Amino acid sequence: MAPSSKPGENMLWGGRFTGGLDPLMVEYNESIYFDKALYKEDILGSIAFARANTKGGILTQDEFEKIEKGLRAVMEEWETDSFKIVPGVDEDIHTANERRLGEIIGKDVAGKLHTGRSRNEQVACDMRMWLRDELRKIDDYLVNFLKVITARAESEIDYVMPGYTHLQRAQPIRWSHWMMSYGLAFAADLERLRETIKRVNKSPLGCGALAGNPFGIDRDMMAKELGFDGLLWNSMGGVADRDFVAEFLQWASMVMTHISRWAEDLIIYSTAEFGFVRLADAYSTGSSLMPQKKNPDSLELLRGKSGRVFGRAAGFMMTLKGLASTYNKDLQESWEPMLDTVKSVSDSIRIAEGVLSTLQTKPEKMKAALDPFMLATDIADYLVRKGVPFRETHHISGQVVALSENTNTPMDQLTYEQLKQVDSRFEKDIAESFDYEKSVEMRSAKGGTSKDSVLEQIRVLKETLKA
Amino acid sequence: MAPSSKPGENMLWGGRFTGGLDPLMVEYNESIYFDKALYKEDILGSIAFARANTKGGILTQDEFEKIEKGLRAVMEEWETDSFKIVPGVDEDIHTANERRLGEIIGKDVAGKLHTGRSRNEQVACDMRMWLRDELRKIDDYLVNFLKVITARAESEIDYVMPGYTHLQRAQPIRWSHWMMSYGLAFAADLERLRETIKRVNKSPLGCGALAGNPFGIDRDMMAKELGFDGLLWNSMGGVADRDFVAEFLQWASMVMTHISRWAEDLIIYSTAEFGFVRLADAYSTGSSLMPQKKNPDSLELLRGKSGRVFGRAAGFMMTLKGLASTYNKDLQESWEPMLDTVKSVSDSIRIAEGVLSTLQTKPEKMKAALDPFMLATDIADYLVRKGVPFRETHHISGQVVALSENTNTPMDQLTYEQLKQVDSRFEKDIAESFDYEKSVEMRSAKGGTSKDSVLEQIRVLKETLKA
Amino acid sequence: MAPSSKPGENMLWGGRFTGGLDPLMVEYNESIYFDKALYKEDILGSIAFARANTKGGILTQDEFEKIEKGLRAVMEEWETDSFKIVPGVDEDIHTANERRLGEIIGKDVAGKLHTGRSRNEQVACDMRMWLRDELRKIDDYLVNFLKVITARAESEIDYVMPGYTHLQRAQPIRWSHWMMSYGLAFAADLERLRETIKRVNKSPLGCGALAGNPFGIDRDMMAKELGFDGLLWNSMGGVADRDFVAEFLQWASMVMTHISRWAEDLIIYSTAEFGFVRLADAYSTGSSLMPQKKNPDSLELLRGKSGRVFGRAAGFMMTLKGLASTYNKDLQESWEPMLDTVKSVSDSIRIAEGVLSTLQTKPEKMKAALDPFMLATDIADYLVRKGVPFRETHHISGQVVALSENTNTPMDQLTYEQLKQVDSRFEKDIAESFDYEKSVEMRSAKGGTSKDSVLEQIRVLKETLKA
Amino acid sequence: MAPSSKPGENMLWGGRFTGGLDPLMVEYNESIYFDKALYKEDILGSIAFARANTKGGILTQDEFEKIEKGLRAVMEEWETDSFKIVPGVDEDIHTANERRLGEIIGKDVAGKLHTGRSRNEQVACDMRMWLRDELRKIDDYLVNFLKVITARAESEIDYVMPGYTHLQRAQPIRWSHWMMSYGLAFAADLERLRETIKRVNKSPLGCGALAGNPFGIDRDMMAKELGFDGLLWNSMGGVADRDFVAEFLQWASMVMTHISRWAEDLIIYSTAEFGFVRLADAYSTGSSLMPQKKNPDSLELLRGKSGRVFGRAAGFMMTLKGLASTYNKDLQESWEPMLDTVKSVSDSIRIAEGVLSTLQTKPEKMKAALDPFMLATDIADYLVRKGVPFRETHHISGQVVALSENTNTPMDQLTYEQLKQVDSRFEKDIAESFDYEKSVEMRSAKGGTSKDSVLEQIRVLKETLKA
Repeated sequence: MAPSSKPGENMLWGGRFTGGLDPLMVEYNESIYFDKALYKEDILGSIAFARANTKGGILTQDEFEKIEKGLRAVMEEWETDSFKIVPGVDEDIHTANERRLGEIIGKDVAGKLHTGRSRNEQVACDMRMWLRDELRKIDDYLVNFLKVITARAESEIDYVMPGYTHLQRAQPIRWSHWMMSYGLAFAADLERLRETIKRVNKSPLGCGALAGNPFGIDRDMMAKELGFDGLLWNSMGGVADRDFVAEFLQWASMVMTHISRWAEDLIIYSTAEFGFVRLADAYSTGSSLMPQKKNPDSLELLRGKSGRVFGRAAGFMMTLKGLASTYNKDLQESWEPMLDTVKSVSDSIRIAEGVLSTLQTKPEKMKAALDPFMLATDIADYLVRKGVPFRETHHISGQVVALSENTNTPMDQLTYEQLKQVDSRFEKDIAESFDYEKSVEMRSAKGGTSKDSVLEQIRVLKETLKA
Repeated sequence: MAPSSKPGENMLWGGRFTGGLDPLMVEYNESIYFDKALYKEDILGSIAFARANTKGGILTQDEFEKIEKGLRAVMEEWETDSFKIVPGVDEDIHTANERRLGEIIGKDVAGKLHTGRSRNEQVACDMRMWLRDELRKIDDYLVNFLKVITARAESEIDYVMPGYTHLQRAQPIRWSHWMMSYGLAFAADLERLRETIKRVNKSPLGCGALAGNPFGIDRDMMAKELGFDGLLWNSMGGVADRDFVAEFLQWASMVMTHISRWAEDLIIYSTAEFGFVRLADAYSTGSSLMPQKKNPDSLELLRGKSGRVFGRAAGFMMTLKGLASTYNKDLQESWEPMLDTVKSVSDSIRIAEGVLSTLQTKPEKMKAALDPFMLATDIADYLVRKGVPFRETHHISGQVVALSENTNTPMDQLTYEQLKQVDSRFEKDIAESFDYEKSVEMRSAKGGTSKDSVLEQIRVLKETLKA
Repeated sequence: MAPSSKPGENMLWGGRFTGGLDPLMVEYNESIYFDKALYKEDILGSIAFARANTKGGILTQDEFEKIEKGLRAVMEEWETDSFKIVPGVDEDIHTANERRLGEIIGKDVAGKLHTGRSRNEQVACDMRMWLRDELRKIDDYLVNFLKVITARAESEIDYVMPGYTHLQRAQPIRWSHWMMSYGLAFAADLERLRETIKRVNKSPLGCGALAGNPFGIDRDMMAKELGFDGLLWNSMGGVADRDFVAEFLQWASMVMTHISRWAEDLIIYSTAEFGFVRLADAYSTGSSLMPQKKNPDSLELLRGKSGRVFGRAAGFMMTLKGLASTYNKDLQESWEPMLDTVKSVSDSIRIAEGVLSTLQTKPEKMKAALDPFMLATDIADYLVRKGVPFRETHHISGQVVALSENTNTPMDQLTYEQLKQVDSRFEKDIAESFDYEKSVEMRSAKGGTSKDSVLEQIRVLKETLKA
Repeated sequence: MAPSSKPGENMLWGGRFTGGLDPLMVEYNESIYFDKALYKEDILGSIAFARANTKGGILTQDEFEKIEKGLRAVMEEWETDSFKIVPGVDEDIHTANERRLGEIIGKDVAGKLHTGRSRNEQVACDMRMWLRDELRKIDDYLVNFLKVITARAESEIDYVMPGYTHLQRAQPIRWSHWMMSYGLAFAADLERLRETIKRVNKSPLGCGALAGNPFGIDRDMMAKELGFDGLLWNSMGGVADRDFVAEFLQWASMVMTHISRWAEDLIIYSTAEFGFVRLADAYSTGSSLMPQKKNPDSLELLRGKSGRVFGRAAGFMMTLKGLASTYNKDLQESWEPMLDTVKSVSDSIRIAEGVLSTLQTKPEKMKAALDPFMLATDIADYLVRKGVPFRETHHISGQVVALSENTNTPMDQLTYEQLKQVDSRFEKDIAESFDYEKSVEMRSAKGGTSKDSVLEQIRVLKETLKA
């Protein structure tokens, strides 16, 4: 190692820093305060590495047994919260664990653990194991949420409400149809999640610092022990690839975007003006100033956190941009986005599930919000069935709407004569078209809002939960 | 329709706008100047819809034939660049095509085309068809680029160069190992792309405005005719889901991040100071002021466009955030990001392929940059093989480095006696460790930089191209 | 210049590109199709540069006059749309203008124009001049919009509506108070804009390629001629600084965020369920399928474009991140975000102005949405005035709310006896508190919703427009 | 308050949550674990509020004194780390402080503290005070960093190095010129920071929940006591405006972008291949595997954190996008980005200062990297001075470069005869142009790299530090 520059001497230009060591730099550099969350993965990875090095003749069976026993003792310390981090020494979890191992089993044997290994591969290995396990939990959370969605959709299939486009009343739909529109988006998130897990769960162990392992280590054996699905095939990529974090963050940003939209709808539906739903008290809060308030805080936090999660994804993409290949310390900035986003997404999906499973629906308010104008398309469709070209029926139906507005008569209370005057092809059976339930049942093509179509959607979604 | 408000009368508060129509709003609203790119998809979608409506009894066979013939005539006009857009009337491609169809075959029949259909589903259908086809082209571009990477990696496998971490010389690697580290990242992009295509290629046709189709249209038949792999299962999602655009943009942002890093490495490698590679003139430009300059503009544009593409993804995610469900006009902002990004990514992958396939390598410069210090790990490994614990060997090797620096003697020219003084366990065969080629060949575990390991990577990658 | 590499010969690795020139690269590289928008700035900059070089003795007066006359002829061609771009030759506006100048006045004199100048400084100069002028227009648009806001706020000051927090009815406010809450946010945008213009409007002319001008050019003279406020003081920064674009994009992203929130409120207020406002037809559109629909497309586009503009800012920040100093071709990616965002923001502010100046308000609907519960704080305040600690009054008021809910009696119709039973300190004058107008007028501290307070806000805002 | 929904009964649809309270929601909602950082601001704000309410007759002088004394006792507890947070009760700092105040002085008086006040204004007030003070510290850090830059620039003004464009050697420049190019960018950051502080430092106190204060509170008095520069003029904006956070985050993202580029340059300059600078050991780290490594971790972290900070800005902009007006719980997501970014930026500027103040420069390496080709422009300039049009001189100079390359003769060692053959206008004094020092001194126009021009820049920058 080169002789130390002595900053004190060079400081002709002034500046904050005068000693040989900058405590702020020590803190700026160290990762132990967040990477300790992965103590278990770090230890399991070390055991697998030592076992493979034993097979390769680098360690004796006796040395291996000491190492394994020692590492399990260290793990026990973490689990019982008795591990003491040495500030300024244990800069990261790898250093901390190896330091402690040396104290327990002696430096002679502990000093052999890292043979042919680099912290670069160790970091990557720990992060991938941990993230894989967390993503499997998130898979469970999503499945649970989807089960609530489908259960409610089946149970409340008879509620009819206004469907909106542009937030303007458009056509009657089933409340369950609304729920399933999000259900299918979340099911696509589940599909994407499973594809992502597959790529996260590849083993970097045995890649060395960048060029590979010089002791012919058995990478497949280690991968198998640690539950990986396969190897990362290039050692430079193996140590420096953080795409698995980036891909997870992008995934998280997508699912949170869905949650933000779902929350937005429910926030609007729970206003006094709409009133279709009412949140359980457990997911609402009051006001410090206004006694009457009941605020949908849970939904607002869900919506707000979509920004946070997106920001983490965006920030890490920027960190990666234009970075020269293999390991650069910039990659340390992958940790906190990963940890923070796993928490944000895990919590958010579970909160969403809690909100939905306790949400009070007001079918009578939904019904009251239906408006005869929402049947204007059905009027047009009626005439289509009489052979009138759609463009013409669209125009005629528009005239009926105008007549209703101009005469201040609800559209479904216009007389048959009034309708006949608009277009002579109206017949008495037009009255049957002024029926929200019928309107809904007419949309019976696949994917539509008729009862059978919605039930089919539920079946399709349930299929995807099994995979 | 409600009676017009007359803005002129209401304008008690001043303002720019005085007539009944705001030409800026017309322009702000219309999409024809970019969505016309999808004239073909729009027409094919209309033909499929009309055919399905014929099966459903909405159109007669004769009407269908007129419509199909008319639409093919409209397509012919687009293809021969003779279609005349009517400004202020043809606000989008759907309106334009139907307007023209009416002129050709008469409004009576043309007016039946849109029966039971909404522009919402039409837009979604056009975009999905177009994007699917473009993504398949991008798949081809990526495969071609990967073929150049693997061909070069095979051909130039004997070039040894410094491997860097933190942009500091670390260990010797093969040039092909560097190429393959990116090759495998691009192969993962290819894998993700194919998963994305699968989700893009679902049919929204038959979803109506939001609630479904009221004439029992055969959605599967339309999907099959248009080459879709399956249906979107909820009509509200079917018309309003733009996740397929968002997912593509996220994908694009990832592949461009890889390209940005690949370009960064090559920009650095093509400096006078590194000098490992030299760009073909076709991908460089000169300076208007400095006659000697040869600038790697192609690589810089590749790197710079990673920002552009990320920005499109980020922007569209923000557009989606918190949007109430089903169609809102905000979603029009999905078009330009999609069109722009398809172009940016398609061009960029092909430019990258061009750069690499014409790049001049300077193996002698690579070799000259190897530095005995890069063998420090090999010195440590040598002692490991003599049974010295790694942590100790690391320390000893550090002392050798220091001795070399302090005596100003290249490490590989230290005498055997000098080494012996550092540690008595050095034997004469230590001389063999001062060999870059040997160092590289020692990294022979899977994924390492030895010749066999790199050739194995190439085989693995080639397998993925077939799928 | 170094002898050409001949790509054809090197293409041992296959690939798309076989000739000596890659037409895709030519297109990928050239900027003429967007930078031509700045033909005028480019020419004026050249004239100023030539004039300064004349003063410096580089050009004779006669040469200068030829150059100026020639350049003005080129400008005339652009203005009459008769300039012919030569594809593959005119890669950018600078090259195009100089090429054409040479044809008009001969290469001998035209060839002197670029003396001591670099395209780097020229690009920077053109962009800064153009952006400065556009930002001044945007300043005007903002001022106009603010004038509409204040005029309406004065005119409609008597309308009382529900104020919302968490989208739940909170307390009565004036409609003008709502308008002014955005007015003051836009006024802050105006303040920031003026600060930004100040930094945009600095001259890079005379910075050379990076190291400065070697002919002692008078930079102040050029800056003055071109209307700059001062100089960029370091030539490396002068040519490569695109912070002025980044700062503008950040600014734009902020103003669009305000517009997105303003639009969101108005979209909600224009639903059937709220019904407080109705958009003019000029800013709404209908549905192709549903005859009754009137959609607030203008507001949705405004909201959606906040994503687009943010994306441009985000993308360009990423392009800048980690870029080595001075000019790199990556910076070409500053052009399109700048051009696109100037258009998006200019249009959006004017559309917003149009929407507001023609918006129909429904004061009766606003009034009808007031709800006695919104006076719960006033009940608490009443008791505060009787000396009850606020925390207790908050609790008592909550009991009144509960009584009203449990007895299904509107809070303002609870009898005096009922109230007295909740708390004996209620006196008969409590009846006066059930008055929305009074509630509003009570908030008379600065910044509150009482009439005087709102009028004061309007005066304060108007002051800022003058600066 | 409405009777509680009882989730247990409604849970027909299954789900995680079965009791009346969801502990995850409690945690998801509470902010105490991060907002406690602002205990001091919260208490000072409360004291000012109580004082103003005393003036307004809401509190007696005696009550005020009790409140002030009590609050100061609470502050003491925070400062001595003896404040006990009550989990599940103290959801935020405001609740915690008021709860504790009640315990100390009794609920009767403590219960009057919040009269006419809302948590909404309290949060805004605390955040603005805290951020203002932190930004003033950041101002100091920036000034200190700029002082180091200017001191070094003065001291090392004689070092000449290659200036790069496109990372290719372009023209000789002074090392100080490079430093000052960043110095002026950071000075612009300082200017922007001061403008931002001005907008942060406005008082929201006295805005109520949204509609204003009903007890005529003296807002100016409170603003003055708390050190604010003025008022927020609309109560709805006052409570809900988080633009001050967004503006700070945008500012932070810009300064970090500058730092990322500065770090990138220094990382490249500290490679073995460039070798212009060497980091002090205090800002470097070694490798766990490679004993010879000295990695510029500090610079890489600086560069990497530009992504983190950008991500925080981007995320919060998304949180704001499309949010309905006034307070929504989404705004809680402004806290962590603010706290995290203040720390990231503060640390980063100080680390950058530490790096620069201890950086070892290698002027001999800078000099050795100068290359005669970098004088090609000087050759052209020489001929310009002989009256040859620049475009021609550019071409001739290019021929000299080619001659040098083809004959493998460094350009400055071409004979006078060789030059004469390229162009007869070369005279003997051309030899003087082959001088890097002279080349640098020729760039003496304002902003250039000559000694006087650089010293002038330093003077200009120093002026800005005073403001």
